[in-house]
Amino acid sequence: MSNDIFSQAQPSYGPGPRTQVRRLAERGRYDRDSVHAILDEGFVCHLGVCVGGQPVVLPQLYVRQGDVLYLHGAPANSALQTAEAAKVACVSVTLVDALVLARSAFHHSVNYRSVVAFGPAAPVSSSKEKEQALLAMVDHVVPGRSAGTRRPSPQELRATRVTKFHIEEASAKIRDGGPKDDPEDLALEGVWAGVVPLELIVGAVVPDAGVSTPVPSYIASLAGGRLHRQPRRRP
Amino acid sequence: MSNDIFSQAQPSYGPGPRTQVRRLAERGRYDRDSVHAILDEGFVCHLGVCVGGQPVVLPQLYVRQGDVLYLHGAPANSALQTAEAAKVACVSVTLVDALVLARSAFHHSVNYRSVVAFGPAAPVSSSKEKEQALLAMVDHVVPGRSAGTRRPSPQELRATRVTKFHIEEASAKIRDGGPKDDPEDLALEGVWAGVVPLELIVGAVVPDAGVSTPVPSYIASLAGGRLHRQPRRRP
Repeated sequence: MSNDIFSQAQPSYGPGPRTQVRRLAERGRYDRDSVHAILDEGFVCHLGVCVGGQPVVLPQLYVRQGDVLYLHGAPANSALQTAEAAKVACVSVTLVDALVLARSAFHHSVNYRSVVAFGPAAPVSSSKEKEQALLAMVDHVVPGRSAGTRRPSPQELRATRVTKFHIEEASAKIRDGGPKDDPEDLALEGVWAGVVPLELIVGAVVPDAGVSTPVPSYIASLAGGRLHRQPRRRP
Repeated sequence: MSNDIFSQAQPSYGPGPRTQVRRLAERGRYDRDSVHAILDEGFVCHLGVCVGGQPVVLPQLYVRQGDVLYLHGAPANSALQTAEAAKVACVSVTLVDALVLARSAFHHSVNYRSVVAFGPAAPVSSSKEKEQALLAMVDHVVPGRSAGTRRPSPQELRATRVTKFHIEEASAKIRDGGPKDDPEDLALEGVWAGVVPLELIVGAVVPDAGVSTPVPSYIASLAGGRLHRQPRRRP
């Protein structure tokens, strides 16, 4: 990765015309740390593009480095090509933390952390940058994994489209805490209210047929826990 | 809900020009059952709209009934209003089931089930339809919940925008199973490969301050298990 994306580092991604959180504005954050923390915990984003004036939203894996999100796909990937050709693309990442059950149906909610980011996208042509982005993506999902794999061949790199999405403007939105019922509902008899936490938990790993190597510690240590227990801080 | 949406029931949502799965076409499904099963397991979608030719993607809760997805927000919700005013909106739902660690970095993948749906959206004006949609949304996330809550008041219904998204064309895409390495990589020494399952697990519930009612059985039974253990079949 060239260093230029770091030199563009900015303290805040907004608010701008596309990212000002209007509804429940107190939930909005625009500082890089808040935006990056959410992007670095998730690994599936939803990429939006407009094709002939009509929206198309597709899930994509990603990794963040500086103000860039790297996405990848087949060379002919239509959504990535459209994003690269357009002036701006939109990427959305949502982490759901809990269900919030209020006394009133109206105040039911979800605790979540989400990011919506806007910016231009460009194809990555350098095979060196492609390789580091793809290995970073592997390590983003399972830290330490790329060192334990067969590295991409020049042919595999040619057979992969890597798209560099530059975060130009972004907002984070966070809801946490318990239900926020109306005062007159607090005394309702027989109505339970509270928070139901949700966690993305790693189950028992299943070795592929013919694998005799023991499960590496960086994978074994994930089992039974949250996928990303430790916040991963990156530049 | 009026019955008309059921009379439009169709055996398949595609493939059409917007939904034909081109890359790895064998992963594509277009039948209603496959699409509905994924939509009924998820509860967060990503809604895409185009604003002045630029894409905007935002997370939304939803519930499916027949060929309709109900979304909701504040009356002034810009994305919902834009979706209603446009000829077509796009809704994407993605469930991540496992990380797939191959011997080669190139063949690393994710097991997932996703739906991309296109269609027109319209505001719901009938307060009766609004109420049933909102209660259905509560029950979609926690089955049995709506009966244990204070129902929406006329004022709360007026303060909620409910948008009806009609699934006109849709595709499901499913990847499952283990890594698909190249034959020459199968003999690589010391490289572990396999599947790391991920599950959305319900943690210990946290009652709100002042709640003396015991945790209802429909909530207590969720704890420690997958949020949606049983496939929920609906019309």
